[in-house]
Amino acid sequence: MNHLQSLQKWVADSGYDVAYISNPTDIMYFTGFSSDPEERVLALFVFPEAEPFLFTPELEVGAAKKAGWNHDVYGYLDHENPFAIIADHIKERTANTTKWAIEKADLPYHRYEAVQEQFPAAEFPGNASEFLDQLKLFKTPDEIELMKEAGRQADYAFKLGFEALSTARSEQQVVAEIEYGLMKKGVMHTSFDTIVQSGINAANPHGGPEKNKIQANALTLFDLGTVNQGYMSDASRTVAFGTPNDKEKEIYNVCLEAQLAAMDAAKPGITAAQLDAVARKIITDAGYGEYFIHRLGHGIGTSTHEFPSIMEGNDMVLKPGMCFSIEPGIYIQGVAGVRIEDCVYLTEDGNEPFTHTTKQLQVLPVK
Amino acid sequence: MNHLQSLQKWVADSGYDVAYISNPTDIMYFTGFSSDPEERVLALFVFPEAEPFLFTPELEVGAAKKAGWNHDVYGYLDHENPFAIIADHIKERTANTTKWAIEKADLPYHRYEAVQEQFPAAEFPGNASEFLDQLKLFKTPDEIELMKEAGRQADYAFKLGFEALSTARSEQQVVAEIEYGLMKKGVMHTSFDTIVQSGINAANPHGGPEKNKIQANALTLFDLGTVNQGYMSDASRTVAFGTPNDKEKEIYNVCLEAQLAAMDAAKPGITAAQLDAVARKIITDAGYGEYFIHRLGHGIGTSTHEFPSIMEGNDMVLKPGMCFSIEPGIYIQGVAGVRIEDCVYLTEDGNEPFTHTTKQLQVLPVK
Repeated sequence: MNHLQSLQKWVADSGYDVAYISNPTDIMYFTGFSSDPEERVLALFVFPEAEPFLFTPELEVGAAKKAGWNHDVYGYLDHENPFAIIADHIKERTANTTKWAIEKADLPYHRYEAVQEQFPAAEFPGNASEFLDQLKLFKTPDEIELMKEAGRQADYAFKLGFEALSTARSEQQVVAEIEYGLMKKGVMHTSFDTIVQSGINAANPHGGPEKNKIQANALTLFDLGTVNQGYMSDASRTVAFGTPNDKEKEIYNVCLEAQLAAMDAAKPGITAAQLDAVARKIITDAGYGEYFIHRLGHGIGTSTHEFPSIMEGNDMVLKPGMCFSIEPGIYIQGVAGVRIEDCVYLTEDGNEPFTHTTKQLQVLPVK
Repeated sequence: MNHLQSLQKWVADSGYDVAYISNPTDIMYFTGFSSDPEERVLALFVFPEAEPFLFTPELEVGAAKKAGWNHDVYGYLDHENPFAIIADHIKERTANTTKWAIEKADLPYHRYEAVQEQFPAAEFPGNASEFLDQLKLFKTPDEIELMKEAGRQADYAFKLGFEALSTARSEQQVVAEIEYGLMKKGVMHTSFDTIVQSGINAANPHGGPEKNKIQANALTLFDLGTVNQGYMSDASRTVAFGTPNDKEKEIYNVCLEAQLAAMDAAKPGITAAQLDAVARKIITDAGYGEYFIHRLGHGIGTSTHEFPSIMEGNDMVLKPGMCFSIEPGIYIQGVAGVRIEDCVYLTEDGNEPFTHTTKQLQVLPVK
């Protein structure tokens, strides 16, 4: 059963009349058609029995068909009322328009109002976001292949970044070298803004690359990912550029021990919270618990943050086909920051990482 | 009155108890703090009298303060319920929590439900999206200065792109050269995916750069923009790479005539629909009306598509301080595509473009 068939089955089994998929990434997931509609309307409507249809700005109709969507595509012009046209096409397909499923985590309030305007009797018992969170938990072999390629691209990006380290370059210029090298290979999208942080900047998790020059004899943190046909990679490495001091080596080794322990423990049967605790205990026992200020990991697939969330309080039992990051970090303001991250997919009895760049502390020559 | 004060005045004058700003770009507009929270909660709450507060993931609290936000910032950890914490901070500030203003064009349905769960008596009479659409229509001199710099960056990007044209490069590789050149200058974000389309590919408006090589003796279309401190540029140029044929020259000249006529007509007092019609009439009279399949333009500022929409049916009278694109296009499948676009800001008696790259048909030598 493909993704669209799973959605149709859920709609039918749940007794809903129509499902409205509004998130562009989820529309790509079901249709193969990728587009950013900005303020315009892009929507997929799915029914228990009738044929689904895609609704796009008129400009995009050709591209949607070209992307391989075999059902109807309807367009609208900027001066037309999209929901009036949508309502007509829905009514062509079914007389039952009361019980709706919508993506509650995505659908903006005014679109919900627009549906209500066209269908005053509409009720919204179904949450397609929750269904999708569950459906997306399990990647098919085809999806895992796409993510493996994204992982290879991330490994290549690390190589580009390590080679670009130079005291003559800023963090931003190292990012430029990484993204240029990727684009020259046809990798046109990163999954988030590439992060390169040198020295004490790395102690600001989720900060960005700045204009300051790369520091010699300090740690540099890379966190990056790419998009391969809609599927994402995400990985972090921290390297020494020149000679690290004893403190830097110590926190690196603690972080690495935690990451490797969690990699060993990541297999079907463990819960997300237990896995988080495996890494957190090592960092806490070493005296750095207060500096590990985020969850161990997040799911990944068509977005960089999806289920399962690998964190305290999440008792979800991990199962084969799930894909997520394992990324302990230690951030000491004014001293240094370390994060080491692989995304993995769970197999029947363990896991395989999507990235393979070495995690032993690399000491790169200053140049 | 600054943006935040305008919002507070609107909340007070409208009799709302609290306004919830949920869109990250709009939060940047009011607070100076720019962040992509992904699935986490980032929110600004504003009251008629009490102090506003910003609410972010715990990881981002420091960055929000550093960005210059002088009021309170509260954080939450991944395992906490953000809306329970938000509700406590709101109740600390006011006993009146019935009349809400929300961004109806942004707020996902489940966040609306989360507010209702914390405040069962809440009603949602206010639409902050509509207020923001109106507030953002008029740019301050400071905002226009930021957009001028973004325009200069776009002009530089055209220069990079024209120089990079080569039959040895693909469309994507030309994009790589443009974005690499921008990043080397510290311009780290484009306002949308840079478009380079050669030959018949340019007839697919809003299509992307492909792996095909740049064609000699054909038109190449560039559509690009940058982000400067949150403010955007957006511009298009079409150039001949080698010798264009007569048909290509003809549609270029028709499109240029339409663009220049609209540039002349863009001044306070004309309506958006009238301005659209100025360009559309020229293209239609020349026999190409059916190939101009989108509106003449869109507003621009903190996003590339905001008000005013320059299109048929929009009777908004244009006024000084408004910023928008003027971008007629002619797209003939299998033949060629042309688009010429500047964004402008309206002055008291006319307009000034943000981009200055020549619009006379440039014939670049094949290399």
